[in-house]
Amino acid sequence: MKLGELAKRLGAELRGDAELEVTGVKGIEEAGPTEITFVANPKYAGLARTTKAAAVLVEPEFPEIKAATLRIKNPYHAFSRTLGFFYQPPAYAPGIHATAVIDPTAIIGEGAHIGAYVVIGPRVRLGDHATLLPHVVLYPGVQAGSHFFAHAHAVVRENCILGDHVTLENGAIIGADGFGYVPVGDSVQKVPQVGIVEIEDDVEIGANTTIDRAKTGVTSIGARTKIDNLVQIAHNVVIGEYSIIVAQVGISGSAQLGKGVIIGGQAGLVGHIRIGDHAMVAAGSGVTKDIAPGQVVAGTPHRPHREWLKMEACLSNLPEMRETLAALQRRLEAIEKKTEKKEPL
Amino acid sequence: MKLGELAKRLGAELRGDAELEVTGVKGIEEAGPTEITFVANPKYAGLARTTKAAAVLVEPEFPEIKAATLRIKNPYHAFSRTLGFFYQPPAYAPGIHATAVIDPTAIIGEGAHIGAYVVIGPRVRLGDHATLLPHVVLYPGVQAGSHFFAHAHAVVRENCILGDHVTLENGAIIGADGFGYVPVGDSVQKVPQVGIVEIEDDVEIGANTTIDRAKTGVTSIGARTKIDNLVQIAHNVVIGEYSIIVAQVGISGSAQLGKGVIIGGQAGLVGHIRIGDHAMVAAGSGVTKDIAPGQVVAGTPHRPHREWLKMEACLSNLPEMRETLAALQRRLEAIEKKTEKKEPL
Amino acid sequence: MKLGELAKRLGAELRGDAELEVTGVKGIEEAGPTEITFVANPKYAGLARTTKAAAVLVEPEFPEIKAATLRIKNPYHAFSRTLGFFYQPPAYAPGIHATAVIDPTAIIGEGAHIGAYVVIGPRVRLGDHATLLPHVVLYPGVQAGSHFFAHAHAVVRENCILGDHVTLENGAIIGADGFGYVPVGDSVQKVPQVGIVEIEDDVEIGANTTIDRAKTGVTSIGARTKIDNLVQIAHNVVIGEYSIIVAQVGISGSAQLGKGVIIGGQAGLVGHIRIGDHAMVAAGSGVTKDIAPGQVVAGTPHRPHREWLKMEACLSNLPEMRETLAALQRRLEAIEKKTEKKEPL
Repeated sequence: MKLGELAKRLGAELRGDAELEVTGVKGIEEAGPTEITFVANPKYAGLARTTKAAAVLVEPEFPEIKAATLRIKNPYHAFSRTLGFFYQPPAYAPGIHATAVIDPTAIIGEGAHIGAYVVIGPRVRLGDHATLLPHVVLYPGVQAGSHFFAHAHAVVRENCILGDHVTLENGAIIGADGFGYVPVGDSVQKVPQVGIVEIEDDVEIGANTTIDRAKTGVTSIGARTKIDNLVQIAHNVVIGEYSIIVAQVGISGSAQLGKGVIIGGQAGLVGHIRIGDHAMVAAGSGVTKDIAPGQVVAGTPHRPHREWLKMEACLSNLPEMRETLAALQRRLEAIEKKTEKKEPL
Repeated sequence: MKLGELAKRLGAELRGDAELEVTGVKGIEEAGPTEITFVANPKYAGLARTTKAAAVLVEPEFPEIKAATLRIKNPYHAFSRTLGFFYQPPAYAPGIHATAVIDPTAIIGEGAHIGAYVVIGPRVRLGDHATLLPHVVLYPGVQAGSHFFAHAHAVVRENCILGDHVTLENGAIIGADGFGYVPVGDSVQKVPQVGIVEIEDDVEIGANTTIDRAKTGVTSIGARTKIDNLVQIAHNVVIGEYSIIVAQVGISGSAQLGKGVIIGGQAGLVGHIRIGDHAMVAAGSGVTKDIAPGQVVAGTPHRPHREWLKMEACLSNLPEMRETLAALQRRLEAIEKKTEKKEPL
Repeated sequence: MKLGELAKRLGAELRGDAELEVTGVKGIEEAGPTEITFVANPKYAGLARTTKAAAVLVEPEFPEIKAATLRIKNPYHAFSRTLGFFYQPPAYAPGIHATAVIDPTAIIGEGAHIGAYVVIGPRVRLGDHATLLPHVVLYPGVQAGSHFFAHAHAVVRENCILGDHVTLENGAIIGADGFGYVPVGDSVQKVPQVGIVEIEDDVEIGANTTIDRAKTGVTSIGARTKIDNLVQIAHNVVIGEYSIIVAQVGISGSAQLGKGVIIGGQAGLVGHIRIGDHAMVAAGSGVTKDIAPGQVVAGTPHRPHREWLKMEACLSNLPEMRETLAALQRRLEAIEKKTEKKEPL
């Protein structure tokens, strides 16, 4: 694609040779002389001067550099769109593979691609343009909206409900039994997990992530929320809209997250707490109590991020503090002796 | 079901209208006027006064409330049983799906449901009433007792032995190779993992959980133990009876856990340690040494829970302590100057 | 096998009865009178005196014990080889199962075992002696070298490239989409993940581990690196040769690890950092910055291991320090009063 054409398609201002042919898209350190790259983070602005890329997507006020520039408000978004111009994911033509086992009571919308060895149970209802890759299993009564995309080995358990444009990466398990037992004598008995999982529109669920069905009622994932790999979401959790849950996070039963919440990787949340809208939890934190809207927390147990920073700084000083404390004690004793001696006089 | 009949089936004392028709079961905040709910935790007793539920399962001494009450010793157990009265999980009729690939040397008990695309290897032996849902794979030589229930995509590797009433949630992997290598020069060589996993009766294993086969001998899970999702159990680990392992816990090689142990979510245990009977490990802890029976520990590295609480309280005071320390130092210096001046006199 | 023959095959010096028949291999506490065991760690030397084993693999200078000894430089390596003499993993004869769905454009080398319900997409290229167990899915364009071994339910996504002797344990997902979104107004839009995963020779990947494809370019795993179960490796991560990544570790996007790096279980690494060759990260650590080659770190946020040990020791003293500080304050006040009284005189 010519640089001029790309600028036009993106709505960007081009400074450079409109006739230059670009053939692909790469990161700023990897891009070669026929590739396009981007700078969104000022931290990497220096690299724009030395990049071998043909052209760099930058913000409108970015200084002139040797490479051509395409100037646009959200360069990372433009980069993302450019990726879409150059690369196409594998296409899956409509059609149902001969080996798919589909219950006669299931209803499948138009334009579906159903891959090899897919199993679709009784009363399943899928909207138009579903793509189910090999070995996907939909248990009885599953409902999904349009453009449902399930990668190989994803599973949706009985009666769970998915909105439009839901994507499951490989091995994601939606609606397995919640972990509920009641102590009876020297053992425990399973509490039937009779609820479902409900996932709203435009949600993506990462590889091998598990979202448990509710004990009663619904485990709920809000629209446009994105969940990374190997995340555990327990029964009756509620997550609001456009939240971000990074890999290996664990959210315990009945926790309620607002909208626009960001949970960093490997963080853990205890059950029955409320996390306010737009709260942020740092990676690796252990959240033990409610978090107010907009708050940023870190640590285990979690603290406001600023408080945590102060505490962390002190921790490094702890050995020194201990020495200072011992020295003060000695000096104080010395003075005490002196003043005692004088006292009786 | 009429409230009177429900009370009779549960063995509960009814205070309220025996003719009231109930249609379902919900949590105390979600239950509607034809549904039944419960209060087991005194923390939620207040909600019983405002619930819209038709009736509430409570302990015998619970105060009178507006809603009908069913009084019984273990209300949560009664709730769990009531769930079973109202809801039925999908039923899987006996029969072997035409697409199941079953080695002729495998022996399968009576009443089995074998789903689509199940693969059963040579010399597998299954007791009566097995339910294997689509895509389950049993490697050669697997043995399982009666009422084995394996959800779609569960895998049991070669020669592993499962007791009666074992349930595997989706994607659980039983008996993958342990992580064992021996350093040889600049690289490592794999140590053959020739042992097995043995799982006793009434054990449930969560979705996408992995339990590795032993290097030699047995990785062992005791009867009635319950394991949540995404848990990692390494080779040669031994877990006693009726223990509870919450999601995303990691247990390193050859660790030995007693019976009735509870390990909170995301906790990690180093290898070759012993955890005594009925010990409890708080969520997110890092356990580095043996734990005596009945002990409760928290933190990384773990400490007795009380000690951890004290330490935690101090941590919040740490910035203040540092300031106090600096102030004391200044004040002490002031005194030292004074007393020095006087000294020479 | 006779003890004399075993000694000969291993190249070990035998002290004991060469005619003694050994039938198997076990750990030092489990081995019986016809089994062989080993001592590699001096910590367990005492057990060699009480073991019931027929013979013990030990280092050349090991003291005499009652059991026969086989003396050799690396007893654990010898033990590992002995395991290989006595046990054989299930053998998978060459052949393609009738139910495998293989695209006509795929090229498969000689001697392949392709199990039931395997799905191989267009343009896949496999070297000789591949073993694909049931339900393995290879997306379009996957390439693998010789001796590729994929356990049941492993998945390799489109265009990923694997070297020779790569092993995937069950449920491993290679090349799922990286977690990349760009904020646009009140929501986020997916950034196409157009790169691949490249895995070099002799790499093993644990059960249910996920390695994401690159945004652009390559997520790369170096030769002879071993990765345990339930590990998350994000897009564009680079891991050098013969590194060891223990279970449940999470490595964030674009982190670069050198060769010979060891990451303990459940540790988490933030994105865009560099970990030098032969660095070691203790289990459970939270790594937030670069680590120099050879450094050993621990804690969250990580510190040099020695510093961390000092800090940890102080933490236990923290309640005592607080009391000491309060006592000093009281004593100082007492002295201040005295010296004040005298001053005006």
